[in-house]
Amino acid sequence: MTALENLIQTLSRLPGIGPKSASRLAYHLIKTEKRYNQNLSQAIATIQDRIFPCSICGSFTETDPCPVCSDASRDRSLLCVVEEPQDVLTIQSSGAYNGLYHVLGGAISPLDGIGPEQLSFSRLLQRIKEGQFTELIIATNPTEEGDTTALYIRHILKDYKELSITRLASGLPIGGDLEYADRITLARSLRGRVTF
Amino acid sequence: MTALENLIQTLSRLPGIGPKSASRLAYHLIKTEKRYNQNLSQAIATIQDRIFPCSICGSFTETDPCPVCSDASRDRSLLCVVEEPQDVLTIQSSGAYNGLYHVLGGAISPLDGIGPEQLSFSRLLQRIKEGQFTELIIATNPTEEGDTTALYIRHILKDYKELSITRLASGLPIGGDLEYADRITLARSLRGRVTF
Repeated sequence: MTALENLIQTLSRLPGIGPKSASRLAYHLIKTEKRYNQNLSQAIATIQDRIFPCSICGSFTETDPCPVCSDASRDRSLLCVVEEPQDVLTIQSSGAYNGLYHVLGGAISPLDGIGPEQLSFSRLLQRIKEGQFTELIIATNPTEEGDTTALYIRHILKDYKELSITRLASGLPIGGDLEYADRITLARSLRGRVTF
Repeated sequence: MTALENLIQTLSRLPGIGPKSASRLAYHLIKTEKRYNQNLSQAIATIQDRIFPCSICGSFTETDPCPVCSDASRDRSLLCVVEEPQDVLTIQSSGAYNGLYHVLGGAISPLDGIGPEQLSFSRLLQRIKEGQFTELIIATNPTEEGDTTALYIRHILKDYKELSITRLASGLPIGGDLEYADRITLARSLRGRVTF
Protein backbone atom coordinates (compact mmCIF):
# COMPACT_ATOMS: atom_id res chain seq x y z
CA MET A 1 0.00 0.00 0.00
CA THR A 2 1.39 3.42 -0.95
CA ALA A 3 1.59 6.35 1.49
CA LEU A 4 -1.33 7.97 -0.36
CA GLU A 5 -3.52 4.84 -0.23
CA ASN A 6 -2.67 4.46 3.46
CA LEU A 7 -3.66 8.08 4.20
CA ILE A 8 -6.94 7.74 2.25
CA GLN A 9 -7.80 4.47 4.00
CA THR A 10 -6.98 5.90 7.44
CA LEU A 11 -9.03 9.08 6.82
CA SER A 12 -12.01 7.05 5.54
CA ARG A 13 -12.27 5.36 8.95
CA LEU A 14 -13.35 8.71 10.47
CA PRO A 15 -17.11 9.16 11.09
CA GLY A 16 -18.91 10.80 8.16
CA ILE A 17 -15.88 10.54 5.84
CA GLY A 18 -16.49 8.19 2.88
CA PRO A 19 -13.86 7.03 0.36
CA LYS A 20 -14.37 10.06 -1.93
CA SER A 21 -14.18 12.62 0.89
CA ALA A 22 -11.10 10.82 2.23
CA SER A 23 -9.47 10.99 -1.20
CA ARG A 24 -10.28 14.70 -1.51
CA LEU A 25 -8.88 15.40 1.96
CA ALA A 26 -5.71 13.41 1.20
CA TYR A 27 -5.01 15.37 -2.00
CA HIS A 28 -5.66 18.57 -0.09
CA LEU A 29 -3.09 17.51 2.54
CA ILE A 30 -0.52 16.80 -0.18
CA LYS A 31 -0.88 20.32 -1.58
CA THR A 32 -1.44 22.41 1.54
CA GLU A 33 1.33 24.27 3.42
CA LYS A 34 3.57 21.85 5.34
CA ARG A 35 3.10 23.85 8.54
CA TYR A 36 -0.64 23.11 8.54
CA ASN A 37 0.00 19.35 8.29
CA GLN A 38 2.49 19.58 11.16
CA ASN A 39 -0.06 21.42 13.33
CA LEU A 40 -2.85 18.95 12.50
CA SER A 41 -0.59 15.93 13.02
CA GLN A 42 0.58 17.29 16.38
CA ALA A 43 -2.98 18.15 17.50
CA ILE A 44 -4.18 14.61 16.68
CA ALA A 45 -1.17 12.91 18.29
CA THR A 46 -1.47 14.80 21.59
CA ILE A 47 -5.22 15.26 22.07
CA GLN A 48 -5.70 12.13 24.19
CA ASP A 49 -2.85 13.10 26.52
CA ARG A 50 -4.17 16.62 27.09
CA ILE A 51 -7.93 15.99 27.42
CA PHE A 52 -9.54 13.90 30.19
CA PRO A 53 -12.98 13.71 31.85
CA CYS A 54 -13.74 16.26 34.59
CA SER A 55 -13.89 14.42 37.95
CA ILE A 56 -17.12 16.28 38.83
CA CYS A 57 -19.28 16.50 35.70
CA GLY A 58 -17.53 14.07 33.31
CA SER A 59 -17.17 16.49 30.37
CA PHE A 60 -13.78 16.72 28.62
CA THR A 61 -11.33 19.18 30.10
CA GLU A 62 -7.65 20.10 30.36
CA THR A 63 -7.96 21.18 34.02
CA ASP A 64 -9.72 19.42 36.91
CA PRO A 65 -12.37 20.52 37.82
CA CYS A 66 -13.38 21.75 34.36
CA PRO A 67 -13.89 25.52 33.68
CA VAL A 68 -17.69 25.13 33.95
CA CYS A 69 -17.63 23.27 37.31
CA SER A 70 -15.14 25.74 38.77
CA ASP A 71 -16.95 28.88 37.49
CA ALA A 72 -18.30 30.58 40.65
CA SER A 73 -20.66 32.78 38.61
CA ARG A 74 -22.76 29.82 37.38
CA ASP A 75 -26.13 28.92 38.94
CA ARG A 76 -25.45 25.96 41.28
CA SER A 77 -29.15 25.20 41.73
CA LEU A 78 -29.50 23.98 38.12
CA LEU A 79 -28.15 20.65 36.85
CA CYS A 80 -28.39 19.66 33.20
CA VAL A 81 -27.94 15.94 32.45
CA VAL A 82 -26.57 15.07 28.99
CA GLU A 83 -25.46 11.87 27.28
CA GLU A 84 -22.04 12.82 25.88
CA PRO A 85 -19.29 15.38 26.63
CA GLN A 86 -19.85 17.13 23.29
CA ASP A 87 -23.46 17.88 24.35
CA VAL A 88 -22.02 20.23 27.00
CA LEU A 89 -20.26 22.22 24.26
CA THR A 90 -23.46 22.29 22.17
CA ILE A 91 -25.62 23.58 25.03
CA GLN A 92 -22.92 26.06 26.11
CA SER A 93 -22.85 27.47 22.57
CA SER A 94 -26.63 28.16 22.72
CA GLY A 95 -25.87 30.77 25.40
CA ALA A 96 -29.24 29.96 27.03
CA TYR A 97 -28.01 28.03 30.08
CA ASN A 98 -25.99 29.12 33.08
CA GLY A 99 -26.15 26.10 35.42
CA LEU A 100 -23.98 23.01 35.90
CA TYR A 101 -23.79 19.78 33.86
CA HIS A 102 -23.68 16.05 34.40
CA VAL A 103 -22.42 13.78 31.62
CA LEU A 104 -23.85 10.24 31.72
CA GLY A 105 -21.40 8.82 29.19
CA GLY A 106 -24.16 7.57 26.89
CA ALA A 107 -27.80 6.46 27.00
CA ILE A 108 -29.42 3.24 28.22
CA SER A 109 -29.55 0.88 25.25
CA PRO A 110 -30.16 -2.81 26.04
CA LEU A 111 -29.66 -3.77 22.36
CA ASP A 112 -26.13 -2.30 22.49
CA GLY A 113 -25.52 -3.92 25.88
CA ILE A 114 -25.51 -0.54 27.68
CA GLY A 115 -27.36 -0.80 31.01
CA PRO A 116 -27.64 1.80 33.82
CA GLU A 117 -24.54 0.35 35.54
CA GLN A 118 -22.30 1.48 32.64
CA LEU A 119 -23.48 5.10 33.00
CA SER A 120 -22.70 7.59 35.78
CA PHE A 121 -26.05 7.43 37.63
CA SER A 122 -24.53 6.70 41.06
CA ARG A 123 -22.32 9.76 40.71
CA LEU A 124 -25.44 11.76 39.66
CA LEU A 125 -27.30 10.64 42.81
CA GLN A 126 -24.28 11.52 44.94
CA ARG A 127 -24.08 15.02 43.41
CA ILE A 128 -27.80 15.61 44.03
CA LYS A 129 -27.47 14.46 47.68
CA GLU A 130 -24.46 16.68 48.30
CA GLY A 131 -25.40 19.67 46.13
CA GLN A 132 -28.02 22.45 46.40
CA PHE A 133 -29.87 21.66 43.18
CA THR A 134 -33.49 22.73 42.89
CA GLU A 135 -33.99 21.74 39.27
CA LEU A 136 -32.66 18.89 37.15
CA ILE A 137 -32.96 19.41 33.37
CA ILE A 138 -32.85 16.19 31.35
CA ALA A 139 -31.18 16.94 28.00
CA THR A 140 -30.78 13.42 26.64
CA ASN A 141 -31.25 13.02 22.89
CA PRO A 142 -34.87 12.88 21.59
CA THR A 143 -34.40 9.22 20.61
CA GLU A 144 -35.73 5.95 22.03
CA GLU A 145 -32.54 5.48 24.08
CA GLY A 146 -32.67 9.10 25.28
CA ASP A 147 -36.34 8.71 26.29
CA THR A 148 -35.56 5.46 28.16
CA THR A 149 -32.71 7.19 29.95
CA ALA A 150 -34.96 10.16 30.87
CA LEU A 151 -37.58 7.80 32.33
CA TYR A 152 -34.87 5.99 34.28
CA ILE A 153 -33.59 9.27 35.75
CA ARG A 154 -37.12 10.25 36.85
CA HIS A 155 -37.49 6.77 38.40
CA ILE A 156 -34.29 6.87 40.49
CA LEU A 157 -35.07 10.42 41.65
CA LYS A 158 -38.72 9.80 42.62
CA ASP A 159 -37.90 10.26 46.37
CA TYR A 160 -36.46 13.76 45.84
CA LYS A 161 -39.82 15.55 46.09
CA GLU A 162 -38.15 18.96 46.44
CA LEU A 163 -36.24 18.55 43.13
CA SER A 164 -38.05 19.80 40.03
CA ILE A 165 -37.33 17.48 37.09
CA THR A 166 -37.73 18.99 33.61
CA ARG A 167 -36.88 17.97 30.08
CA LEU A 168 -35.91 20.00 27.01
CA ALA A 169 -39.07 21.07 25.15
CA SER A 170 -39.93 19.42 21.89
CA GLY A 171 -38.82 21.34 18.86
CA LEU A 172 -35.84 19.08 18.43
CA PRO A 173 -36.56 16.77 15.50
CA ILE A 174 -37.40 13.27 16.76
CA GLY A 175 -34.79 10.63 15.84
CA GLY A 176 -32.14 13.31 15.48
CA ASP A 177 -29.01 14.01 17.45
CA LEU A 178 -28.64 16.85 19.98
CA GLU A 179 -25.26 17.75 18.52
CA TYR A 180 -26.77 18.78 15.17
CA ALA A 181 -29.51 21.07 16.54
CA ASP A 182 -29.10 24.72 15.60
CA ARG A 183 -28.58 27.27 18.39
CA ILE A 184 -31.99 28.94 18.13
CA THR A 185 -33.92 25.64 18.25
CA LEU A 186 -31.81 24.60 21.21
CA ALA A 187 -32.22 27.91 23.05
CA ARG A 188 -35.99 27.77 22.49
CA SER A 189 -36.29 24.20 23.75
CA LEU A 190 -34.30 25.20 26.86
CA ARG A 191 -36.58 28.16 27.59
CA GLY A 192 -39.73 26.06 26.94
CA ARG A 193 -38.63 23.07 29.04
CA VAL A 194 -41.53 21.20 30.70
CA THR A 195 -42.03 19.19 33.89
CA PHE A 196 -41.22 15.54 33.18
CA MET B 1 -7.24 28.21 23.37
CA THR B 2 -7.59 24.68 24.76
CA ALA B 3 -6.19 21.60 23.01
CA LEU B 4 -9.75 20.64 22.04
CA GLU B 5 -10.59 24.09 20.60
CA ASN B 6 -7.29 24.03 18.70
CA LEU B 7 -8.03 20.58 17.22
CA ILE B 8 -11.57 21.62 16.21
CA GLN B 9 -10.34 24.85 14.63
CA THR B 10 -7.54 23.05 12.75
CA LEU B 11 -9.90 20.34 11.47
CA SER B 12 -12.45 22.95 10.33
CA ARG B 13 -9.88 24.38 7.90
CA LEU B 14 -10.08 21.17 5.85
CA PRO B 15 -12.21 21.34 2.68
CA GLY B 16 -15.83 20.25 3.24
CA ILE B 17 -15.43 20.15 7.06
CA GLY B 18 -17.60 22.77 8.83
CA PRO B 19 -17.46 23.64 12.54
CA LYS B 20 -19.97 20.93 13.52
CA SER B 21 -18.24 18.18 11.54
CA ALA B 22 -14.90 19.33 12.98
CA SER B 23 -16.32 19.12 16.50
CA ARG B 24 -17.73 15.64 15.85
CA LEU B 25 -14.38 14.47 14.44
CA ALA B 26 -12.48 15.93 17.41
CA TYR B 27 -14.67 14.13 19.95
CA HIS B 28 -14.27 10.94 17.93
CA LEU B 29 -10.47 11.35 18.07
CA ILE B 30 -10.60 11.81 21.85
CA LYS B 31 -12.46 8.53 22.30
CA THR B 32 -10.93 6.32 19.60
CA GLU B 33 -8.03 3.90 20.17
CA LYS B 34 -4.73 5.72 20.67
CA ARG B 35 -3.08 3.57 17.98
CA TYR B 36 -5.45 4.96 15.32
CA ASN B 37 -4.55 8.57 16.24
CA GLN B 38 -0.85 7.70 16.05
CA ASN B 39 -1.30 6.18 12.58
CA LEU B 40 -3.34 9.15 11.31
CA SER B 41 -0.94 11.69 12.82
CA GLN B 42 2.04 9.90 11.27
CA ALA B 43 0.34 9.58 7.86
CA ILE B 44 -0.45 13.32 7.79
CA ALA B 45 3.01 14.36 9.00
CA THR B 46 4.88 12.30 6.39
CA ILE B 47 2.63 12.48 3.29
CA GLN B 48 4.40 15.48 1.74
CA ASP B 49 7.82 13.86 2.14
CA ARG B 50 6.74 10.59 0.53
CA ILE B 51 4.59 11.86 -2.36
CA PHE B 52 5.87 13.99 -5.26
CA PRO B 53 4.81 14.66 -8.87
CA CYS B 54 5.88 12.08 -11.50
CA SER B 55 8.53 13.69 -13.77
CA ILE B 56 6.69 12.36 -16.85
CA CYS B 57 2.93 12.74 -16.29
CA GLY B 58 2.78 14.98 -13.20
CA SER B 59 0.49 12.76 -11.12
CA PHE B 60 1.43 12.08 -7.49
CA THR B 61 3.72 9.12 -6.91
CA GLU B 62 6.20 7.55 -4.49
CA THR B 63 8.48 6.28 -7.30
CA ASP B 64 9.69 8.12 -10.41
CA PRO B 65 8.40 7.44 -13.05
CA CYS B 66 5.02 6.64 -11.50
CA PRO B 67 3.55 3.09 -11.70
CA VAL B 68 1.26 4.09 -14.62
CA CYS B 69 4.04 5.68 -16.73
CA SER B 70 6.36 2.71 -16.12
CA ASP B 71 3.72 0.04 -16.79
CA ALA B 72 4.82 -1.64 -20.07
CA SER B 73 1.38 -3.23 -20.56
CA ARG B 74 -0.38 0.12 -21.03
CA ASP B 75 -1.34 1.49 -24.46
CA ARG B 76 1.30 4.10 -25.31
CA SER B 77 -0.71 5.46 -28.26
CA LEU B 78 -3.35 6.99 -25.94
CA LEU B 79 -2.82 10.12 -23.83
CA CYS B 80 -5.47 11.38 -21.43
CA VAL B 81 -5.09 15.02 -20.30
CA VAL B 82 -6.53 15.86 -16.86
CA GLU B 83 -6.51 18.94 -14.64
CA GLU B 84 -5.42 17.52 -11.28
CA PRO B 85 -3.45 14.49 -10.00
CA GLN B 86 -6.56 13.10 -8.27
CA ASP B 87 -8.32 12.91 -11.67
CA VAL B 88 -5.82 10.15 -12.62
CA LEU B 89 -6.98 8.09 -9.63
CA THR B 90 -10.62 8.72 -10.52
CA ILE B 91 -10.21 7.62 -14.16
CA GLN B 92 -8.05 4.65 -13.12
CA SER B 93 -10.80 3.49 -10.79
CA SER B 94 -13.32 3.46 -13.68
CA GLY B 95 -11.32 0.57 -15.17
CA ALA B 96 -12.25 1.82 -18.66
CA TYR B 97 -8.89 3.31 -19.71
CA ASN B 98 -5.53 1.67 -20.36
CA GLY B 99 -3.44 4.51 -21.85
CA LEU B 100 -1.13 7.14 -20.35
CA TYR B 101 -1.94 10.42 -18.56
CA HIS B 102 -0.85 14.04 -18.55
CA VAL B 103 -1.65 16.24 -15.55
CA LEU B 104 -1.94 19.96 -16.37
CA GLY B 105 -1.91 21.11 -12.75
CA GLY B 106 -5.20 22.99 -13.09
CA ALA B 107 -7.37 24.70 -15.71
CA ILE B 108 -7.03 28.05 -17.47
CA SER B 109 -8.88 30.60 -15.34
CA PRO B 110 -8.09 34.26 -16.02
CA LEU B 111 -10.26 35.35 -13.07
CA ASP B 112 -8.06 33.33 -10.70
CA GLY B 113 -4.93 34.57 -12.47
CA ILE B 114 -4.16 31.13 -13.96
CA GLY B 115 -2.96 31.44 -17.54
CA PRO B 116 -1.51 28.77 -19.89
CA GLU B 117 2.04 29.55 -18.72
CA GLN B 118 1.22 28.23 -15.21
CA LEU B 119 0.09 24.86 -16.57
CA SER B 120 2.23 22.08 -18.11
CA PHE B 121 1.36 22.69 -21.81
CA SER B 122 4.99 22.91 -22.99
CA ARG B 123 5.69 19.54 -21.37
CA LEU B 124 2.53 18.20 -23.08
CA LEU B 125 3.76 19.39 -26.51
CA GLN B 126 7.18 17.85 -25.84
CA ARG B 127 5.60 14.49 -24.92
CA ILE B 128 3.47 14.51 -28.11
CA LYS B 129 6.54 15.32 -30.25
CA GLU B 130 8.64 12.57 -28.66
CA GLY B 131 5.93 9.93 -28.12
CA GLN B 132 3.90 7.66 -30.40
CA PHE B 133 0.47 8.99 -29.48
CA THR B 134 -2.34 8.56 -32.01
CA GLU B 135 -5.12 9.89 -29.80
CA LEU B 136 -5.32 12.61 -27.16
CA ILE B 137 -8.34 12.40 -24.83
CA ILE B 138 -9.21 15.69 -23.12
CA ALA B 139 -10.65 14.90 -19.69
CA THR B 140 -10.77 18.39 -18.18
CA ASN B 141 -13.75 19.13 -15.91
CA PRO B 142 -17.09 19.96 -17.64
CA THR B 143 -16.87 23.55 -16.35
CA GLU B 144 -16.17 26.90 -18.03
CA GLU B 145 -12.47 26.66 -17.08
CA GLY B 146 -12.30 23.05 -18.27
CA ASP B 147 -13.95 24.00 -21.59
CA THR B 148 -11.53 26.92 -22.07
CA THR B 149 -8.62 24.61 -21.36
CA ALA B 150 -9.94 22.01 -23.83
CA LEU B 151 -10.22 24.68 -26.57
CA TYR B 152 -6.71 25.88 -25.79
CA ILE B 153 -5.33 22.31 -26.12
CA ARG B 154 -7.05 21.89 -29.51
CA HIS B 155 -5.59 25.25 -30.57
CA ILE B 156 -1.96 24.46 -29.68
CA LEU B 157 -2.21 21.01 -31.32
CA LYS B 158 -3.84 22.18 -34.59
CA ASP B 159 -0.65 21.34 -36.60
CA TYR B 160 -0.66 17.69 -35.45
CA LYS B 161 -3.01 16.48 -38.21
CA GLU B 162 -2.22 12.80 -37.51
CA LEU B 163 -3.29 13.13 -33.84
CA SER B 164 -6.95 12.43 -33.12
CA ILE B 165 -8.23 14.80 -30.41
CA THR B 166 -11.26 13.63 -28.44
CA ARG B 167 -13.09 14.73 -25.33
CA LEU B 168 -15.03 12.77 -22.69
CA ALA B 169 -18.65 12.36 -23.79
CA SER B 170 -21.32 14.36 -22.07
CA GLY B 171 -23.10 12.47 -19.38
CA LEU B 172 -21.02 14.22 -16.75
CA PRO B 173 -23.25 16.79 -15.05
CA ILE B 174 -22.33 20.33 -16.24
CA GLY B 175 -20.82 22.54 -13.54
CA GLY B 176 -19.76 19.50 -11.53
CA ASP B 177 -16.38 18.12 -10.66
CA LEU B 178 -14.78 15.10 -12.34
CA GLU B 179 -13.73 13.72 -8.98
CA TYR B 180 -17.34 13.19 -7.87
CA ALA B 181 -18.55 11.34 -10.98
CA ASP B 182 -19.57 7.72 -10.35
CA ARG B 183 -17.61 4.94 -12.06
CA ILE B 184 -20.35 3.90 -14.49
CA THR B 185 -21.00 7.45 -15.74
CA LEU B 186 -17.28 7.93 -16.14
CA ALA B 187 -16.76 4.62 -17.95
CA ARG B 188 -19.66 5.45 -20.30
CA SER B 189 -18.33 8.91 -21.10
CA LEU B 190 -14.92 7.37 -21.84
CA ARG B 191 -16.39 4.79 -24.26
CA GLY B 192 -18.61 7.43 -25.91
CA ARG B 193 -15.89 10.08 -26.33
CA VAL B 194 -16.31 12.29 -29.40
CA THR B 195 -13.98 14.13 -31.80
CA PHE B 196 -13.35 17.62 -30.41
